[in-house]
Amino acid sequence: MACGIAQALERIGDWWTLLIVRDALFGLSTFDEFRQSLGIPRNTLSTRLSDMVEKGILICEDDPQDGRRKLYSLTDQGRDLWVILLALQQWGNGWIYGPERVPSYMADRETMTPIEQLSPRAADGRALTLEDVTMIEGPGATPLLKAFFDMLNAENAPDTDQSN
Amino acid sequence: MACGIAQALERIGDWWTLLIVRDALFGLSTFDEFRQSLGIPRNTLSTRLSDMVEKGILICEDDPQDGRRKLYSLTDQGRDLWVILLALQQWGNGWIYGPERVPSYMADRETMTPIEQLSPRAADGRALTLEDVTMIEGPGATPLLKAFFDMLNAENAPDTDQSN
Repeated sequence: MACGIAQALERIGDWWTLLIVRDALFGLSTFDEFRQSLGIPRNTLSTRLSDMVEKGILICEDDPQDGRRKLYSLTDQGRDLWVILLALQQWGNGWIYGPERVPSYMADRETMTPIEQLSPRAADGRALTLEDVTMIEGPGATPLLKAFFDMLNAENAPDTDQSN
Repeated sequence: MACGIAQALERIGDWWTLLIVRDALFGLSTFDEFRQSLGIPRNTLSTRLSDMVEKGILICEDDPQDGRRKLYSLTDQGRDLWVILLALQQWGNGWIYGPERVPSYMADRETMTPIEQLSPRAADGRALTLEDVTMIEGPGATPLLKAFFDMLNAENAPDTDQSN
């Protein structure tokens, strides 16, 4: 499906990927560290790590201290997933835990206080709520997708268009 | 696992949820509309929709125009997933498509231009990169989690602590 969301989900593959990225962001790097942190079966972890290397999310190198051991670290592409993790954490903390029961926050290292709630913004800096948002075509849109967005944005156009 | 990220992933359940939310955000509401848009098997869609209703992401009501038909719409909790979708879209557009091939953007309805790249910020408004970020305990942290964060933040503390 020609959609950044669908393609991102496909490349990520499954939830383990995001939990492995979370752990890698905070310093874990070996098979055993991931296995212990995640309680994930060995086979699943092994497949997942290879898949993440193949997809360009992780790099796998020999441990210079111990040649039989591999060290996994995030590529730039993998590191960039952190904003998705932050969005998931803010949603989970808000809707599942609530302020009294939050187990953890991503925090600003300088002040050790939680990161502000993510706030989507327009090009001119205005904060956007979902009501302000629509979907538009990009340069790679197929004719079908263009037609869909034309329809979507005609339907949703401001009051002048309500006669449709 | 006591972690907003892990709990968010568990509640979301699988990728279909996020694609259904995407479609619901942009106006789809019936079983047949979701099935057509997603090319998802009937049984899978049926299970997924019930699960999303049970978890409080969707509301299911009778269609006032056609009593045999159900209409699905997002709860506030479901609508709040849009920031996660935006983060996924920006990552997918950047790392999978690249600027020339992007099929679609979420856009500001006022100017019909793409939403700015999400920018995590500290409480005082400073833009944060991953290097500026750590994980800290919340009020609901277990003793084990607290110990982990103490260790993490001791290891990662600024230069004064490099002797460890």
